[in-house]
Amino acid sequence: MTTDTEHDAQTPTQARSAAYRNDRAHVFHSWSAQASLDPVVVAGASGSYFWDESGKSWLDFASQLVNVNLGHQHPKLIEAIKAQADKLCTVAPYHANEATAEAARLIAQVAPGDLNKVFFTSGGAEAIENAVRIARHHTGRHKVLSAYRSYHGATAGAISLTGDPRRWGAEPGMSGAVKFWGPYPYRSAFHASSPEQECERALAHLADVLMVEGPHSVAAIVLETVVGGNGILVPPDGYLQGVRALCDRYGIVMVADEVMAGFGRCGEWFAIDRWRVVPDLIAFAKGVNCGYVPLGGVIISERIAESFASKVFPGGLTYSGHPLACAAAVACINVYRDEGIIERVRRLGDELIAPALDAIKQRHPSVGDVRGVGMFWAIELVRDRASREPLVPYNAAGADNRPMSEFAAACKQGGLWPFTHFNRTHVVPPLTISEDDLRKGLAIIDEALNVTDRYAVA
Amino acid sequence: MTTDTEHDAQTPTQARSAAYRNDRAHVFHSWSAQASLDPVVVAGASGSYFWDESGKSWLDFASQLVNVNLGHQHPKLIEAIKAQADKLCTVAPYHANEATAEAARLIAQVAPGDLNKVFFTSGGAEAIENAVRIARHHTGRHKVLSAYRSYHGATAGAISLTGDPRRWGAEPGMSGAVKFWGPYPYRSAFHASSPEQECERALAHLADVLMVEGPHSVAAIVLETVVGGNGILVPPDGYLQGVRALCDRYGIVMVADEVMAGFGRCGEWFAIDRWRVVPDLIAFAKGVNCGYVPLGGVIISERIAESFASKVFPGGLTYSGHPLACAAAVACINVYRDEGIIERVRRLGDELIAPALDAIKQRHPSVGDVRGVGMFWAIELVRDRASREPLVPYNAAGADNRPMSEFAAACKQGGLWPFTHFNRTHVVPPLTISEDDLRKGLAIIDEALNVTDRYAVA
Ligand SMILES: Cc1ncc(COP(=O)(O)O)c(C=O)c1O
Ligand SMILES: Cc1ncc(COP(=O)(O)O)c(C=O)c1O
Repeated sequence: MTTDTEHDAQTPTQARSAAYRNDRAHVFHSWSAQASLDPVVVAGASGSYFWDESGKSWLDFASQLVNVNLGHQHPKLIEAIKAQADKLCTVAPYHANEATAEAARLIAQVAPGDLNKVFFTSGGAEAIENAVRIARHHTGRHKVLSAYRSYHGATAGAISLTGDPRRWGAEPGMSGAVKFWGPYPYRSAFHASSPEQECERALAHLADVLMVEGPHSVAAIVLETVVGGNGILVPPDGYLQGVRALCDRYGIVMVADEVMAGFGRCGEWFAIDRWRVVPDLIAFAKGVNCGYVPLGGVIISERIAESFASKVFPGGLTYSGHPLACAAAVACINVYRDEGIIERVRRLGDELIAPALDAIKQRHPSVGDVRGVGMFWAIELVRDRASREPLVPYNAAGADNRPMSEFAAACKQGGLWPFTHFNRTHVVPPLTISEDDLRKGLAIIDEALNVTDRYAVA
Repeated sequence: MTTDTEHDAQTPTQARSAAYRNDRAHVFHSWSAQASLDPVVVAGASGSYFWDESGKSWLDFASQLVNVNLGHQHPKLIEAIKAQADKLCTVAPYHANEATAEAARLIAQVAPGDLNKVFFTSGGAEAIENAVRIARHHTGRHKVLSAYRSYHGATAGAISLTGDPRRWGAEPGMSGAVKFWGPYPYRSAFHASSPEQECERALAHLADVLMVEGPHSVAAIVLETVVGGNGILVPPDGYLQGVRALCDRYGIVMVADEVMAGFGRCGEWFAIDRWRVVPDLIAFAKGVNCGYVPLGGVIISERIAESFASKVFPGGLTYSGHPLACAAAVACINVYRDEGIIERVRRLGDELIAPALDAIKQRHPSVGDVRGVGMFWAIELVRDRASREPLVPYNAAGADNRPMSEFAAACKQGGLWPFTHFNRTHVVPPLTISEDDLRKGLAIIDEALNVTDRYAVA
């Protein structure tokens, strides 16, 4: 509802709220054909739930876009935003201010190794753009390698590195963007039959790509530490160590995209900590402040930052280091730490989600694979467990996608808002979700999978 | 100061505050060599002033980066942010919500013609990126024309369209980016001797560039309606009409970059309104909510939006339509309207700034040109009025830039924070600045120009 009652009165015949009508009349939505949209008007949210204007509520198993790690409307974040709003909303990025400096100090503190400097942006795509610019200027090289089955954002540079169909609409893209295949044991590009073999072959493939591209021409390897939107692809042990070794061997900058996987999602501050690997740059956003105020950035090693001690870094944005966004980050990081969120995620992932998904897999013939870590899990759906034929084709839309849209509808019907992508649903609730709600959500998914089972070989 | 007093105690020998030390230790600043920085720690701000931790304050003649149009800490914006923070900070862009829908409605209301749909981003560069993507998909063409002496942002697409040295560090850039020369009567690329001739010749040049590029291959012409950072280049009457006509003739999308010039800065809702031209897309950011929460976007004509009724728009970002940012925009637009800001800007521009700058020009041999509109003015400095040799060379740094750095230091010494770029200083205070402060600021600049006069032929 808008407060403008006159406007409400303009179309008395229409039953929908002014917010709905204004949205349909004036908001152009991302990644969509506009005429087909019928969005939920979110009227409020709290913890793991959000609700519409009629009071219908959903358990948020998507954390919106996997960003509200501490759930909706966390009181400590709200308080920090309001306090900073009273103090200082915005300053130009050439100034310093307490909120920005403190956020940078905390981020450096929780980042691995000597990643001690933070360049702030307003989101994940801008983080990737700036990571690439830093790597190119640090190395003096142009090419950037990234993986198929990845998402890095939608600005011209970030989308060129993206390895999913969202890139297609932005081609031809940035010069120097080269793709490789990453590890994905369930659908191995390397015909591997074990995670160990997948690891070894994926590294051999990456080394081969470097060989034929010319490693001296490669500025950076950019990869999602744990691939998020494209399937929660947890790298086999040894893979990230191997990538690190290749980068060291050839003087290539290793960029970990932790936009979705970082800040507790994987039961570590950064997903890469799980393998004790220290990248050169970390791109972050989302979980840094749960998206309560747009924020992202790049964490930079001392060695790379040193390159720009007397050389100008050619990048920037009006809102770099935004105080309001940084104040929310300070509160958020303190909550992760003070409330033991990260340990909780690890424990619930291991003790509750993993066994529950294993049981779900036993029960449902349409479930081909379950995998994940922390609170970052995928259920991959198939028509046939033997052939592993996906439940819907790659990038399916419309009628081709019916099994998945029926599944999503069943979840929503049951009171759960799912994250779905291609032939998968992801279990990515707020990290603060109660154990009861987590069990409840998994039960709703369990029930909804009866719908997809109808499309699968029993 | 951080609240972490232990951290304060770590370096007792250092006199600077924790905020300063944390900034220097952990914040990587834009467009800079990091070792040379000595930023002001902004401790607070109100209206047209901001101050540091020692209480030293400056009159903000830069509006930070020309974004705090309503000044610092405007109570109505703060109130709106706090109210929205209590209600709903963030939702995914596939949902609708009241704040986003109302911001879109208000923006559509103040936008010219049938520009009725809004795609929201978190800043100006992302706005340009999405405007280009929209234009390319609408037309099915690839090339994008933009002007030398322009700035459109720093992501890979936006920086490729940028016509100033900030682009150099991002090359080779996006394919299909073609540059033309825009009108600039004081330094005509066309050897014109009057604004009328400049207009005519600039349009002939643009038509020639289209001819040799092949107009059927051009998706968009992107231009700052009034060029901001690169010199407050107010187009001669007729120029934008001429660009519109060329776009109409060839089916090219006309994109007005109003990131800096829009939302009241030029004494109009959008600068382009001054010439009664309706572009196809408007890119905005900054003044839409004064940057209190990062926000930008693209306003889209009904005709172009219609292209995406059943065709998917391939673009997006996690924070598109961010409720907190949109709530600030709603409050901001209502203030512009309810407090008659736009009329005030027009009046003060015409009646106070224009005559004051004319008088300054009379007094100072280093002033070659003064120009502007509304509260968007430039003073261009020269070594010699006859030859128009710039006071410092294009893109000067270090010792070459000394006359300008001495000028800036004199302003700061006098209590004014100036906007300087190359051989110019811009007069771009908050639109709400009091007449007394405006006069005071102009007097400080007047005084500081005695410094630059020493480098100029008398
Ligand atoms: C791994 C990863 N990188 C980058 C991005 C882009 O972030 P943003 O949408 O904030 O630009 C995303 C967004 O989902 C992401 O998941
Ligand atoms: C005209 C214009 N366009 C685009 C931008 C880029 O905006 P942002 O810094 O928010 O990315 C700017 C920033 O100054 C600008 O002045």
